[in-house]
Amino acid sequence: MDLIIKNGTIVTLSESYIADIAVKNGKIVAIGTGFSEEGAEVVDAHGKLVLPGAIDAHTHLAMPFGGTVSADSYLAGTRAAACGGVTTVFDYPMQRKGHGIIETIKGRQEMCDPEACVDYAFHCIITDLNEGAILDEFKSAVDYGITSFKCFLVYKKEGMMVDDATLVKIMLKAKETGAITNIHAENPDLIDLNIEQFLKEGKTSAWYHYLSRPEYVEAEADKRAVHLAKSVEAPLYIVHMADKEGLEAAIAAKMDGHEIYIETCPQYLEFTSDVYKREDGRNFVCSPPMKGQESQDALWKAIKTGAIDTIATDHCPFQSYEKDWGKDDFSKIPNGCAGVENLYPYMLSAANDGKLSFNRVIELCSSNPAKIFGCDQKGSITVGKDADIVIYDPNKDFTISVKNMHSDYDHTIWEGKKLHGYPEQTYVRGNLVYDNGEFVGKPGTGKFVRRIARK
Amino acid sequence: MDLIIKNGTIVTLSESYIADIAVKNGKIVAIGTGFSEEGAEVVDAHGKLVLPGAIDAHTHLAMPFGGTVSADSYLAGTRAAACGGVTTVFDYPMQRKGHGIIETIKGRQEMCDPEACVDYAFHCIITDLNEGAILDEFKSAVDYGITSFKCFLVYKKEGMMVDDATLVKIMLKAKETGAITNIHAENPDLIDLNIEQFLKEGKTSAWYHYLSRPEYVEAEADKRAVHLAKSVEAPLYIVHMADKEGLEAAIAAKMDGHEIYIETCPQYLEFTSDVYKREDGRNFVCSPPMKGQESQDALWKAIKTGAIDTIATDHCPFQSYEKDWGKDDFSKIPNGCAGVENLYPYMLSAANDGKLSFNRVIELCSSNPAKIFGCDQKGSITVGKDADIVIYDPNKDFTISVKNMHSDYDHTIWEGKKLHGYPEQTYVRGNLVYDNGEFVGKPGTGKFVRRIARK
Amino acid sequence: MDLIIKNGTIVTLSESYIADIAVKNGKIVAIGTGFSEEGAEVVDAHGKLVLPGAIDAHTHLAMPFGGTVSADSYLAGTRAAACGGVTTVFDYPMQRKGHGIIETIKGRQEMCDPEACVDYAFHCIITDLNEGAILDEFKSAVDYGITSFKCFLVYKKEGMMVDDATLVKIMLKAKETGAITNIHAENPDLIDLNIEQFLKEGKTSAWYHYLSRPEYVEAEADKRAVHLAKSVEAPLYIVHMADKEGLEAAIAAKMDGHEIYIETCPQYLEFTSDVYKREDGRNFVCSPPMKGQESQDALWKAIKTGAIDTIATDHCPFQSYEKDWGKDDFSKIPNGCAGVENLYPYMLSAANDGKLSFNRVIELCSSNPAKIFGCDQKGSITVGKDADIVIYDPNKDFTISVKNMHSDYDHTIWEGKKLHGYPEQTYVRGNLVYDNGEFVGKPGTGKFVRRIARK
Amino acid sequence: MDLIIKNGTIVTLSESYIADIAVKNGKIVAIGTGFSEEGAEVVDAHGKLVLPGAIDAHTHLAMPFGGTVSADSYLAGTRAAACGGVTTVFDYPMQRKGHGIIETIKGRQEMCDPEACVDYAFHCIITDLNEGAILDEFKSAVDYGITSFKCFLVYKKEGMMVDDATLVKIMLKAKETGAITNIHAENPDLIDLNIEQFLKEGKTSAWYHYLSRPEYVEAEADKRAVHLAKSVEAPLYIVHMADKEGLEAAIAAKMDGHEIYIETCPQYLEFTSDVYKREDGRNFVCSPPMKGQESQDALWKAIKTGAIDTIATDHCPFQSYEKDWGKDDFSKIPNGCAGVENLYPYMLSAANDGKLSFNRVIELCSSNPAKIFGCDQKGSITVGKDADIVIYDPNKDFTISVKNMHSDYDHTIWEGKKLHGYPEQTYVRGNLVYDNGEFVGKPGTGKFVRRIARK
Repeated sequence: MDLIIKNGTIVTLSESYIADIAVKNGKIVAIGTGFSEEGAEVVDAHGKLVLPGAIDAHTHLAMPFGGTVSADSYLAGTRAAACGGVTTVFDYPMQRKGHGIIETIKGRQEMCDPEACVDYAFHCIITDLNEGAILDEFKSAVDYGITSFKCFLVYKKEGMMVDDATLVKIMLKAKETGAITNIHAENPDLIDLNIEQFLKEGKTSAWYHYLSRPEYVEAEADKRAVHLAKSVEAPLYIVHMADKEGLEAAIAAKMDGHEIYIETCPQYLEFTSDVYKREDGRNFVCSPPMKGQESQDALWKAIKTGAIDTIATDHCPFQSYEKDWGKDDFSKIPNGCAGVENLYPYMLSAANDGKLSFNRVIELCSSNPAKIFGCDQKGSITVGKDADIVIYDPNKDFTISVKNMHSDYDHTIWEGKKLHGYPEQTYVRGNLVYDNGEFVGKPGTGKFVRRIARK
Repeated sequence: MDLIIKNGTIVTLSESYIADIAVKNGKIVAIGTGFSEEGAEVVDAHGKLVLPGAIDAHTHLAMPFGGTVSADSYLAGTRAAACGGVTTVFDYPMQRKGHGIIETIKGRQEMCDPEACVDYAFHCIITDLNEGAILDEFKSAVDYGITSFKCFLVYKKEGMMVDDATLVKIMLKAKETGAITNIHAENPDLIDLNIEQFLKEGKTSAWYHYLSRPEYVEAEADKRAVHLAKSVEAPLYIVHMADKEGLEAAIAAKMDGHEIYIETCPQYLEFTSDVYKREDGRNFVCSPPMKGQESQDALWKAIKTGAIDTIATDHCPFQSYEKDWGKDDFSKIPNGCAGVENLYPYMLSAANDGKLSFNRVIELCSSNPAKIFGCDQKGSITVGKDADIVIYDPNKDFTISVKNMHSDYDHTIWEGKKLHGYPEQTYVRGNLVYDNGEFVGKPGTGKFVRRIARK
Repeated sequence: MDLIIKNGTIVTLSESYIADIAVKNGKIVAIGTGFSEEGAEVVDAHGKLVLPGAIDAHTHLAMPFGGTVSADSYLAGTRAAACGGVTTVFDYPMQRKGHGIIETIKGRQEMCDPEACVDYAFHCIITDLNEGAILDEFKSAVDYGITSFKCFLVYKKEGMMVDDATLVKIMLKAKETGAITNIHAENPDLIDLNIEQFLKEGKTSAWYHYLSRPEYVEAEADKRAVHLAKSVEAPLYIVHMADKEGLEAAIAAKMDGHEIYIETCPQYLEFTSDVYKREDGRNFVCSPPMKGQESQDALWKAIKTGAIDTIATDHCPFQSYEKDWGKDDFSKIPNGCAGVENLYPYMLSAANDGKLSFNRVIELCSSNPAKIFGCDQKGSITVGKDADIVIYDPNKDFTISVKNMHSDYDHTIWEGKKLHGYPEQTYVRGNLVYDNGEFVGKPGTGKFVRRIARK
Repeated sequence: MDLIIKNGTIVTLSESYIADIAVKNGKIVAIGTGFSEEGAEVVDAHGKLVLPGAIDAHTHLAMPFGGTVSADSYLAGTRAAACGGVTTVFDYPMQRKGHGIIETIKGRQEMCDPEACVDYAFHCIITDLNEGAILDEFKSAVDYGITSFKCFLVYKKEGMMVDDATLVKIMLKAKETGAITNIHAENPDLIDLNIEQFLKEGKTSAWYHYLSRPEYVEAEADKRAVHLAKSVEAPLYIVHMADKEGLEAAIAAKMDGHEIYIETCPQYLEFTSDVYKREDGRNFVCSPPMKGQESQDALWKAIKTGAIDTIATDHCPFQSYEKDWGKDDFSKIPNGCAGVENLYPYMLSAANDGKLSFNRVIELCSSNPAKIFGCDQKGSITVGKDADIVIYDPNKDFTISVKNMHSDYDHTIWEGKKLHGYPEQTYVRGNLVYDNGEFVGKPGTGKFVRRIARK
């Protein structure tokens, strides 16, 4: 054996039990007791939880957006991931009009590969069908390991939106090739009307970012996307769900037997639209924005009932000086916040506080993203899987601060948040990358995850 | 008195009772018994029902569409109306891009006025905001008597569609000025995708007209329109509702207190999508198309429960040779069917057959359109109202045929339909315009109905 | 003519129009203008609303209950009715076990007849099937004019409850004989459990009356009754609906095409459960109790959307000394409050305040009860109907006080309530019974209303 | 090691992977590869699925019912269980009025212990609160390992029903003591009315068993039970759910965050009410009866969406001569059918046919019953758990016949059912009890499962 993690409490989808884990060549080869420790590094996890590494299915690293580039490079973002117990990130390269999928992916792969501190996969954002050529490329893309394609139903003026016809074509081709369609659901017409009106009235604070895209803006697009997916019987994955009405429509479709997956993010579980009334409200600007208490309650309820499938971060930080561009005009604030390092600690702390079970956190943050997106080698502590393992101390208190984070951004919406329990070590394929507050991995060791098609 | 209609059974929203009606100067001046008959024409309606004239809130006369013009001129259409007990028609002039509302209306008024055999009002179809000038014109249009504006959510390629932003602007301005927004709800992207696919596969019969715009195509747009209306708290009138899912969404919003009105048409109550499998299926082509049995059942149920507000016809006939253009390509069939002369007889026959009450027919075909669209002088047999009266023989059998209709079209989807009961006389403001099978009115006597704004 | 009411604004289900009403032999014989005034009493109603008399479909006069008898005799109760614009009351005689229906009715008829100041009808409460004999009597009862039978789903310990089997038998027999079943829906087991628990814990104030029968207590029985009615396809009338969840279930069944009618009462529209926290909370004790704000909002919404069919009062006052029996034990407070004189003024004042239309008040308080319960001669101002007419001054302010009421009770929950508008005259079959604050009718002139069976 | 199962495909809630399982002292001690085989029995499961033993959470062995005793003794029933891959049965002792819980359980334990071929647990049916003494006994019962109590909402005339008050008391006390309440939901009043009517009309065939307890009979009680559980916020487990409407109400409550569990049975998934039209319809008589196709479709959908929690059998067979008692009167047919040996093979065959995943079968038939009912040592193949293991050959075809079953009954409703895949071996705590068609275990080796209280 290369590594034996002893005496820890292993958490699975349905159980928590004490056993040893034996790792060889980056894989879990046995779980039980009485393994020979000869030649192995032995770690005692007594009193600790031993968890599968988290999968953050939604990041935007080095993302050109809002007239700048998101603050975390692949190096900074994956380093932060490692330090937050995330062992795989799914990043979102965006096709530029006229360009191909694999061309797009390879371009980002070249950027990411030498920097990656944890494993990484790519969704691909489609903005243009290139007169159908893009649809013809789906099969090759899937073979290349890209099995999920994202559509913006918003950002119409920015030229990133696809219309209903394009969305449906993508959904059908994705279904045919064993891929799935992800959507960002907001209605751009309503947003643009509101923004125009508010700016005309001199309403320019961050609060009007929320009021220009309130609950009904997201709900319209959620409901339309669900309707279209049902109409053509194609699978759908809704990213960063944040409003109650859309959530309920998606759940109703799921309960009616349709293959619809729902992702939400920690920021929607922690904050409400009230943050936009704060002096520093612009720092919280992301799209969709945080919503009212009713929506937050509905999200937590759906986490409890099993209706929400995944928690991811939409990690897309910007620096303070960039956020300041919108001091006098909310429409100029770059959209996005930090989160990749906070995902797992936040959800595990919630479990520690009794808001959900540790098993459910595993499901939301590791098992489900692995299953939905075709990462067979990830997602649980099971014999044969990659040894992506987090050792978690449920008794360690931690207060989030930009000072103890491992990204490149200069502020965080999570500043001051107190957590109960915190990760102690993170292993990626058996290699220690995080140890008690320090990043100990090596950039470039993270590997591209070639995903497999859906059946 | 000018006219006394004696001994008939007057039907109102809630009662059926025997009394005499006295008419003077085109108005109902008294209801009761014992009126002096001096100088009056006296009509004995013993054994007959005495009903308010129907209001057909949806016609397309002399309508340029599908590369031709609908087959009924204002003369033919209003003559047919008179002969079917319809004493007011609402026609749908369509703004051409760049043109104004009142300009559009006046143009059609000039065409209609010398020909009108019954009273007429105009909705106005908006296709272009003319950079906001159209919105600025709403107030004047309302003052002119145009208190309803229609948006197509479909016909995108044809340049008639408005996007969500335009729809919302219209809804808000309509609300502000005491008007209401009517919508034709179908999703154009889904239709165009389907048509393209079917034509590519050589599927060209009328059946594919239905399959290119099935239930989910209409439902998407219904639900979106309802959502938008709720979001901005504006009243909405959905024309020719034909599908169950959209209907249920609209009803749910009504029951939640939103001001949403639902219109359906006799063709959706009588025919299902099966007609498109017929040899002459192209004659039944209209948009939205007839739907499946489930939708028809839902429409009848909503008529029973009160959830549907109005029945109108979408009267828009084309000649056989025009329908034949689409013999080998359903996408070339002009969309529309005849109906204005069949509306009231069809619904009253259904009442005679026990499917609904006569009171409810009055509500659907006369009282509600009058109230929703601001025709205070119309809509019931009440002292002070216009003497728009139909004397109906509940015991007369009638079989619809193109031969006994009074339009200019050369075929009808209603051919052979047997009715129980039929109108015997129609009076418009006290003037007899229809008598036992014959049109006895005079073109040009119908008057423009200047409607009043909503409060 | 005997009476002509001139120049008033007549309000119907759908219109408000100015005309004169001519009355002869207690009937409305003509509506219009220009009637000969020879020999007629002429009343000028210029500036006033002329309304059909209200029908209070729910009173308990001289009702033995809670160890006493309700405070209003037939004389006092119908006198108060007249003074509140109610021209017909429906009282609820209760069958004593072993007794027959007609026997029960005749007993009460004998009490009521010499005292009645307005017309009256009887529902009959069934408590015992007398081994089936009662069911056999339904046909005769209907012929006698009793076309509605009430079941208590509550008052189990008091021996008044019927079980599900009895309820279903009654519903089926009522349907067969053209009658309808009324129900008081609360779950007795839950109530008794709660009362037992509260008394054990020394919780004895009126607040615990509410807490022992909160929303879920009523909702369970509402939903069960609706389910049973749907199961056997029988019509159902739910009295004094006061909770949101039950209301929504009943509305869903209505919208699904089932014949279900919903009554609520002014007290549920005006007060919430908060009244039970007042010092004099016991005076507000009735069953079901007032509920929370959410329920009240849902009731008003259902009034607006048309989902609620009738407003009645459940008038059942007790004197202060009787209410005081429960000062130290809420379970000893006689259940019931005054209302018959407040019904119409309260609802009309709400219309005056813009909460609903006057037309809708007419529907709720007159037209619908007449139609649902088979009073063809009542319910609207229409030629041929009884001249039950209220002249209403929309500009007169009025503050309710026990001092200006015309009952025998010594306090009222409506004390201090300010109304906008108030009835000026009430006519029963053309006879003036109320005039500007004074009762001017004669006991014994009210007549038994023999109702007709449903089709 | 005592036993090593090699090379099989282990199926868990979320994964299927190839590994070896090492067993010692009846427990799973390691999973992986390369275990020393010294002294161990080694079984090669190459090409086979290795599954956790099923838990049948609903049997009635040696059950006095319908004037006789169910045909399977504890010996026969648990022998059949072993041969069907069921390694734990939950039997339903019924408290006789006046008797205590532990007294009841011990009595059955004495019968079962010497006969048990697999492990067993007991729910306890409560029929009488013994003036509260039973509630006082809940805590001791839970300590004894009885953590679930069942109420009949039906069998009123049979004296087994509890009323709403008793049910609520049980739910509250169960919640307080860490137990859960199971219910059999049908409305007895409706059933008795129907039976009385049918027998009066001479309608006596098995078809009238169904018609006397159709969908609405079960739905009423389902909805009421769900309502009561929500009202008092207590957990609820609904046994043998068979109808769509009740199912949907239960799902809605789950999605609203309430702790409600739903069990259904293979017979409702395989048969519809049509079976009661068969000559041998009486053999299929059980309560609730099989329902229409719509209900069956809804059950399968809920299995797919995750809304149904468990599949159990309600195993309660009777001999042909007993079923024949009801040849001329359906009300005399003993209620119940065989199933314990068919549960796992039926569901696994469905998985083999693609109707659900093998993982989901594990969840429904093993993991969920273990978790819901507090059997921590059972429910999955995990290190530390009891070695209750089934080796399943997915390629073996099998046709069910009474001849190849291992019970004592003389016929089965499953006769002729073809299955794809069948269990080859069953181990209970590491001991082989079934091998390729033969029972090879020993009566009396099954152990009482002392369950632990819920948190």
